[in-house]
Amino acid sequence: MSTEFPSPDLPSPLPKSPVLQAAYRAKAAAATIAPLPRTPKDEALLAIADALQVRTREIVEANAEDVAQARANGTDEAVIDRLTLTRERIAAIADDVRKVAGLPDPVGEVIRGYTLPNGLDVRQVRVPLGVVGIIYEARPNVTVDAAALCLKSGNAVLLRGSSSAIASNRKLVEVIRDAVGGAGLPADAVQLVPGESRESVQELMRARGMVDVLIPRGGAGLIRTVVEQSTVPVIETGTGNCHVYVDAEADLAMAVEILINSKAHRVSVCNAAETLLVHKDIADAFLPLALAALADAGVTVHADPRVQAVAEREGSKAVVVPATAEDWETEYLSYDIAAGVVDSLEDAVAHIRLWTSGHTEAIVTTSQAAARRFTQLVDSTTVAVNASTRFTDGGQFGFGAEIGISTQKLHARGPMGLPELTSTKYIVTGDGHIRR
Amino acid sequence: MSTEFPSPDLPSPLPKSPVLQAAYRAKAAAATIAPLPRTPKDEALLAIADALQVRTREIVEANAEDVAQARANGTDEAVIDRLTLTRERIAAIADDVRKVAGLPDPVGEVIRGYTLPNGLDVRQVRVPLGVVGIIYEARPNVTVDAAALCLKSGNAVLLRGSSSAIASNRKLVEVIRDAVGGAGLPADAVQLVPGESRESVQELMRARGMVDVLIPRGGAGLIRTVVEQSTVPVIETGTGNCHVYVDAEADLAMAVEILINSKAHRVSVCNAAETLLVHKDIADAFLPLALAALADAGVTVHADPRVQAVAEREGSKAVVVPATAEDWETEYLSYDIAAGVVDSLEDAVAHIRLWTSGHTEAIVTTSQAAARRFTQLVDSTTVAVNASTRFTDGGQFGFGAEIGISTQKLHARGPMGLPELTSTKYIVTGDGHIRR
Repeated sequence: MSTEFPSPDLPSPLPKSPVLQAAYRAKAAAATIAPLPRTPKDEALLAIADALQVRTREIVEANAEDVAQARANGTDEAVIDRLTLTRERIAAIADDVRKVAGLPDPVGEVIRGYTLPNGLDVRQVRVPLGVVGIIYEARPNVTVDAAALCLKSGNAVLLRGSSSAIASNRKLVEVIRDAVGGAGLPADAVQLVPGESRESVQELMRARGMVDVLIPRGGAGLIRTVVEQSTVPVIETGTGNCHVYVDAEADLAMAVEILINSKAHRVSVCNAAETLLVHKDIADAFLPLALAALADAGVTVHADPRVQAVAEREGSKAVVVPATAEDWETEYLSYDIAAGVVDSLEDAVAHIRLWTSGHTEAIVTTSQAAARRFTQLVDSTTVAVNASTRFTDGGQFGFGAEIGISTQKLHARGPMGLPELTSTKYIVTGDGHIRR
Repeated sequence: MSTEFPSPDLPSPLPKSPVLQAAYRAKAAAATIAPLPRTPKDEALLAIADALQVRTREIVEANAEDVAQARANGTDEAVIDRLTLTRERIAAIADDVRKVAGLPDPVGEVIRGYTLPNGLDVRQVRVPLGVVGIIYEARPNVTVDAAALCLKSGNAVLLRGSSSAIASNRKLVEVIRDAVGGAGLPADAVQLVPGESRESVQELMRARGMVDVLIPRGGAGLIRTVVEQSTVPVIETGTGNCHVYVDAEADLAMAVEILINSKAHRVSVCNAAETLLVHKDIADAFLPLALAALADAGVTVHADPRVQAVAEREGSKAVVVPATAEDWETEYLSYDIAAGVVDSLEDAVAHIRLWTSGHTEAIVTTSQAAARRFTQLVDSTTVAVNASTRFTDGGQFGFGAEIGISTQKLHARGPMGLPELTSTKYIVTGDGHIRR
């Protein structure tokens, strides 16, 4: 299939930098796969899924090296758990790849199309971005997910994982490349960025013109570095200082359930709630219930004076400590929550606008007017009305897969699926049209 | 109207930098106008249009200062012409503002909406970007256009024009702010970036978190500087090394007409053609006609050896000089064109991919297969089939207005109208939904 399409020649000699060499190869591969229809891309994805299962033993062995090294380094068990690949997990990853194969192909979709008064036909059509760079931490499943999503959307991908997962990532990329090549597509569409040093990340960030977009996934420090230093366009992802606001009129039981789900369903993720704001008119009724439920869930409450006062008056069993300004901006990712009382919905909105990372904010209210006002005024990727913050997720939104959650306003905002891995081009067709 | 909506408090004390002060004020104004419906925004736009005409004399007088200064500096007459404002031109600018008022409001448009299997309603809704920074050269009409488009799309705008138009821009922004304030919207939604030094541009480029996007409009040097140095997300615009490719099978008269229109209809614009590529099978028939027409249009041809050979053999009256590698990448913006013969459509595509700035490429062909292949393989903002490159333009595409032409792949590609000045947010609505 690939030989039907011309691909740009590689420059000769290639640049000395292994990172730039990889980028050149990715660009050539991207030009080859960009015009492909769906079938050859899906065939490559199914080949990857099969290969992951056929070669599971190789992958588990390579992963065991990383896990042993992590143990020797005294790595936290939660991190080791995310790093570990088992037969079951690999089967689940392979199934995810098959699901991506089953998703509609975004490439070729006509977003807008019309005929101008002069008869010229205008079509705006989705096309791949080109070369996508992903910088991520020690989760080898991201290696496979990102490769599958980029291939499906006609992009080449440069993967820059954590050095703590290097053996796993090398093996996974070897398996993927073999499968891609075996399916007749250019293996260079999926590459690990060579080099484990920070310099290789720096080179990637400066490969403007070769790499079309960088998506950093991971801790806030990594994301800030990439955002500030990259000359390649970046999509900022993931930091989530999410808020739950309980309005003056709210179903108390619903509010408790949404609060606990938002905070404690899974604390280490970006769509977990980190701050609770309560309208003063409902504080006396709601806070005792909320504090008891938070205590049951093992959550420490970093409270403003008004929340502290309620806790003391009630003799709450909750662990309550005074909140500082720092608490309002902290993404705990732990069994902690900041909590405060506000005088109005507008004050809640002002607090959120000041401190939020712009990920997800929820309101619990029975008032249609309050719901409408909150959704109008809050400017975050997702505003949830009477629903948990935990729904901000590509899988939950029905995208079938997710490459990350954009917290920026340009290009994509919120969970990013396949369409967010595309750009568009205009095709204008006439029969000799010139401008008068 | 504006007092209905809370706006974030300005920090106290304000930062010392006048540029950052302006950015803070813009951010506060943006929060106020973002949730506004269409009517108050349109009323402000109509007030601006009326004020431009009522206060025409003031504007012409201020502009006369700039023009006098430009003459004293020995500025090129073409530049002075673009700088000059007359009563007629101001009336035309005011009419453009009225046209923007008549365009549909992109804010609030539901891009996608569906109900999940669990009953949660998901809506993806257009919202303003926030604060838009525009850096541009000596065209005072851009001041008004940009302000109108940003206001209509609910954004605040920071305008950084050329120092050579400073008196005109100050007066125009004064007139606009008076009208905006008079219509009950915050005047700080439209501000001139204080300071004429390069440092003020540097500050603007580092105002990440305050400014949501920077759009540089102007020369290639300006755009490159902003793209490379800004930590604020940038939309790259404008450079156009556009190609016209005449395929093996083409209507010769149509090809000549499209070539001449693409090259010479207006040479100083980004959608003018800069390179002609001709398939070898049609070169002997087409090139004599093309060279004669280019000569008539006063265009100098920078020719590869095969085009030179035809010119010599025919004794063409065209001015033909040898092309160097530099010619293939030059955006002349003058009565010059590079011209070469290619062996195949694939070679034309490879040439274009290597040298293009990715703006607009045209194919002239009678072959449906060639048209399809060219549009699939060429990766530029716009691919024109049997039409002039000159159609890549927001006005021509029917957008009603244009803030620039993006030549990057992220966020927007090609002519940018009102929807391209927006982001989106998700609104998810349940009745107590939590994640299981």
